[in-house]
Amino acid sequence: MARRSVDEHAARIAALVAPALAGLGTELLPLAAARGRVLAEEVTSAVPLPPFRNSQMDGWAARAAEVADAPLLLPVAGVQAAGAATPRTLPPGAVLKVMTGAPLPDGADCVVPVEDAEAEGDSVRILRGRAPGEFVREAGSDLPAGAVLGPAGALLTPRRLAALAAGGVAEVPVRRRARVAVLTTGEEIVAPGRPLAFGQVYDANETALVALLQEAGADPLPPIRTPDDPAAFAAALDVAVRVADLVITSGGISHGDFEVVRQVLEPRGAEVVEIAMQPGGPQALASVGGTPVVGFPGNPVSTQVSFVVLLRPLLRAAAGLPPIDASIVPLGVALASPAGRRQWLRGRIETGRATPVGGPSSHLVATMADADVLLDVPADVERLEAGDPIAVLPL
Amino acid sequence: MARRSVDEHAARIAALVAPALAGLGTELLPLAAARGRVLAEEVTSAVPLPPFRNSQMDGWAARAAEVADAPLLLPVAGVQAAGAATPRTLPPGAVLKVMTGAPLPDGADCVVPVEDAEAEGDSVRILRGRAPGEFVREAGSDLPAGAVLGPAGALLTPRRLAALAAGGVAEVPVRRRARVAVLTTGEEIVAPGRPLAFGQVYDANETALVALLQEAGADPLPPIRTPDDPAAFAAALDVAVRVADLVITSGGISHGDFEVVRQVLEPRGAEVVEIAMQPGGPQALASVGGTPVVGFPGNPVSTQVSFVVLLRPLLRAAAGLPPIDASIVPLGVALASPAGRRQWLRGRIETGRATPVGGPSSHLVATMADADVLLDVPADVERLEAGDPIAVLPL
Repeated sequence: MARRSVDEHAARIAALVAPALAGLGTELLPLAAARGRVLAEEVTSAVPLPPFRNSQMDGWAARAAEVADAPLLLPVAGVQAAGAATPRTLPPGAVLKVMTGAPLPDGADCVVPVEDAEAEGDSVRILRGRAPGEFVREAGSDLPAGAVLGPAGALLTPRRLAALAAGGVAEVPVRRRARVAVLTTGEEIVAPGRPLAFGQVYDANETALVALLQEAGADPLPPIRTPDDPAAFAAALDVAVRVADLVITSGGISHGDFEVVRQVLEPRGAEVVEIAMQPGGPQALASVGGTPVVGFPGNPVSTQVSFVVLLRPLLRAAAGLPPIDASIVPLGVALASPAGRRQWLRGRIETGRATPVGGPSSHLVATMADADVLLDVPADVERLEAGDPIAVLPL
Repeated sequence: MARRSVDEHAARIAALVAPALAGLGTELLPLAAARGRVLAEEVTSAVPLPPFRNSQMDGWAARAAEVADAPLLLPVAGVQAAGAATPRTLPPGAVLKVMTGAPLPDGADCVVPVEDAEAEGDSVRILRGRAPGEFVREAGSDLPAGAVLGPAGALLTPRRLAALAAGGVAEVPVRRRARVAVLTTGEEIVAPGRPLAFGQVYDANETALVALLQEAGADPLPPIRTPDDPAAFAAALDVAVRVADLVITSGGISHGDFEVVRQVLEPRGAEVVEIAMQPGGPQALASVGGTPVVGFPGNPVSTQVSFVVLLRPLLRAAAGLPPIDASIVPLGVALASPAGRRQWLRGRIETGRATPVGGPSSHLVATMADADVLLDVPADVERLEAGDPIAVLPL
């Protein structure tokens, strides 16, 4: 059987999924709920930052020309506190006590810091003069009114959120997250925590896909697990395609007699194909009711590798998150790999070298937990030596 | 005034905060709520993985010795489906159809993949023999029963969660997150979204501290904002120290007349000190009712830098998250820095060189949003040239 290349299958998934995720639109979130999200549109500041000319220090607001001959004694005309609704006016030949962040009194053009002065009764001895503008923060010196607090596409880090808050923005327009339905299938799969009969295995794919989706900036819907019952799976699928932007299935697309996903999806126009990839050879792709359905094989390593290689880039792009790129590092050990399959080995980077963790088999779900990267062995490569360059994709 | 060094103040904070966060204890979470958390204790698998000997392929379960002379025709004795409660027994001189993941029939020792055989009525023509063990997954070949699914301290990545699910674990013991109270103060600060009168500024520190705490693996309690009213602040503080593992305040610790945090904390034994750091010079530290209270200055850049430099390492360590380490890169431009202060400039890494973003002033909260790192200019350095090595701390 001719196997489709990974790149070709990835392109076919992209052709179906990327347009479906392109129109996710915008939602408005309070700042406190927006960390890690991405601005859907540019947000500008209604106010300049700082909003008004203010003092950078606790000290004495003065006229630079009047304190140039310091040391000298000047009368204190009062106090300018922070939060004052109107600035006071500095009388000629005097100073006003001023707090950090308080409006600069009208007429003042510098601040003498508290450590450069000594109070003497109702006066203050200015020990050192200051130039015009010293310790004064001009209105708009951080950001003019109307300027951009966050461009479209900005990731909402703590410091970006702080800037938005400083600009008075309480709610931000962020890209809506893709709603993704997860359907895991298999007569043998059982929810973790339930008793396990002979012949049954615990469902790792639901847990893996939900967590992978969250990491990729998507919003997993409550997952659904079905046995190899086409009616049950079809019912779950028909709900999923109505409520989700994307449906992911695991299992049921191989060559056995009870391939529930294949049985239900093929009459709905799915292509169920073998791709030249290990793990993750069997793959399915459909559009059901206008919603893309991506079918991954049921082995838990196959499911995770398929997601990382085929869907994660699309979901991160839709969410506005930066791509996770492969890098090239030297291989720590020699490797053999089957001809005609692009193999994704689980591995770690140790002292700068990529080293496989466990074997290539797709059932090694416990072993995969210790991996940090996938080692990408091209389809036409059957042997690599220690020190050879290899592409590694962070998990 | 002698200024305390950053390292000394960090050590004093650590001496107070680290013990308070050392006894956070454990909470039990369902897998679906545990992503990004850290295992509080080792978790082992009650079952071997895989739980039973099973087929790696859709194909024909056989005895290797009986298919060694392939091609040959063998009768099909039935089907072994996945999810079967008992394995079938393979009669001598026959094969059983077997699905991926199905128990290997008793007596079988290899699987002939579906692509290496052709069905002929009630028989199948085996085109290629297989050695004992081929396409058979032995019980426990991924993980023996009782072995470790996740060590204490393991970060719960999607793949670690998948391994735990595969082992049947439905709930995991994770480190409880530190509950941290955030109290922002200032007569002039207003919640984003509210109208801004002259002399007022929007509170960026609440938003920043909540988001920074979440990123550092802590659990921020609903934040409280108070004006410069000692009674209001004292009331908020007294609640906070009862419900939180740690209290962070911003503002009110400088030399002005309305320093609410200083006024309330000093009678409770706080030290309010100047440290040789810019931004972030004024700092306060107290233990109130046995709860550490860390007081940061109110300028929004000072608050964020203080958190990143002084508290983030302690919170990440308490959460079991890996440290965020500084690295050394060449400086992109020449820099001047005040003597006697360790200066943390906001910057970016561009083409491998650290370049400041905006000026050093602590009110530049909008500008800080564009920074990725802090440039760490030592206290005794007044001038650096382009190309000089500088330590940068990721934000």
